[in-house]
Amino acid sequence: MTVNKKGILVVVSGPAGVGKGTVCDVVSKNNPEIFISISATTRAPRRGEVDGVHYYFKTKEQFEEMIENNELLEYNKFVNGNYYGTPAKECDTRLENGVNIILEIDVEGGKQVRAKRPDAVMIFVLPPSFCELEKRLRGRSSETEEDILSRLARSEAEFEYGKKYDYLIVNDMPEMAAAKIQAIIEAEKHRTFRCLNEVKKNIIR
Amino acid sequence: MTVNKKGILVVVSGPAGVGKGTVCDVVSKNNPEIFISISATTRAPRRGEVDGVHYYFKTKEQFEEMIENNELLEYNKFVNGNYYGTPAKECDTRLENGVNIILEIDVEGGKQVRAKRPDAVMIFVLPPSFCELEKRLRGRSSETEEDILSRLARSEAEFEYGKKYDYLIVNDMPEMAAAKIQAIIEAEKHRTFRCLNEVKKNIIR
Repeated sequence: MTVNKKGILVVVSGPAGVGKGTVCDVVSKNNPEIFISISATTRAPRRGEVDGVHYYFKTKEQFEEMIENNELLEYNKFVNGNYYGTPAKECDTRLENGVNIILEIDVEGGKQVRAKRPDAVMIFVLPPSFCELEKRLRGRSSETEEDILSRLARSEAEFEYGKKYDYLIVNDMPEMAAAKIQAIIEAEKHRTFRCLNEVKKNIIR
Repeated sequence: MTVNKKGILVVVSGPAGVGKGTVCDVVSKNNPEIFISISATTRAPRRGEVDGVHYYFKTKEQFEEMIENNELLEYNKFVNGNYYGTPAKECDTRLENGVNIILEIDVEGGKQVRAKRPDAVMIFVLPPSFCELEKRLRGRSSETEEDILSRLARSEAEFEYGKKYDYLIVNDMPEMAAAKIQAIIEAEKHRTFRCLNEVKKNIIR
């Protein structure tokens, strides 16, 4: 029997290029009861992107209304003027149904989630080394030298907040990093504060 | 790469009859890097028990000297007058070598370990229900009715302290309960407070 019925809210952050998207995809593929949250954004859909699958595409007005109505678990306005955020209601419905939710968001978003949901599990993904990260970023032909340097500086700044996360994992191999996240989610189900009420209800006379 | 080099000290407690010994044996059998600590005791060896394998057999004088010299992580004197305890030095050597140690001890011992080692991971094992526990105890032909009732009363009292443990797991099937403990140990390796120093040394420039 499982003693924890509610799903767990998991925040996964980490520097650009660390491969957290790939890791989260592996976790979700291996575990049908772990779902990656779909973000809302005001940026235009790219070719092949489907509303409600890759993102919820919103106008600026719609997004700002969601902010005003407190419908977002977290949100950010990027330097390019686009908003990104996590709709709260969909998350909460899934959590109530026992589905574990991964939010793949940056540390700014992570801060907001931690403040609103102190029971969220915060995981920060690290590269095997920052030299390795630089190599990975340079391997992406799309980035200019300026982009790369600014991303690296940002990565180190992000890690300053990442130190406050609950768990640090190193992504040397996506399958191995995914196994670590799965173990963390499995372990967290059994934390006393999450399952004590169910235990009292079902086990104790 | 693993970012945590030191082993993790794990306390496993739970009511008599819950099957925690079997669960811990499965964990240790599946994971050569998880070791079940060997207790010291003043009780006489039973047939087939080997000193240094099943217990460290000590005289009362030897045991009390260990207490005085602060050589025990925890100890208890049972109603029958026998002492049981965990020698600290052996544990610490193994932990330093990266071996994870399980102490299978009662909540009294657990309290002492928590006070001395706040980084210990505390796991309390529960039966699927207290009715089931009663059934299991009655299934042991060796126990008198008085024994059974006193064990049941003690189980509920123990759970009062078990609520302060970090994790609660239900032992419906030893293999499944063992998998939960393994996930907890794997997850705990990645807790920020355990691995931040290694991360700073190896990953950050």
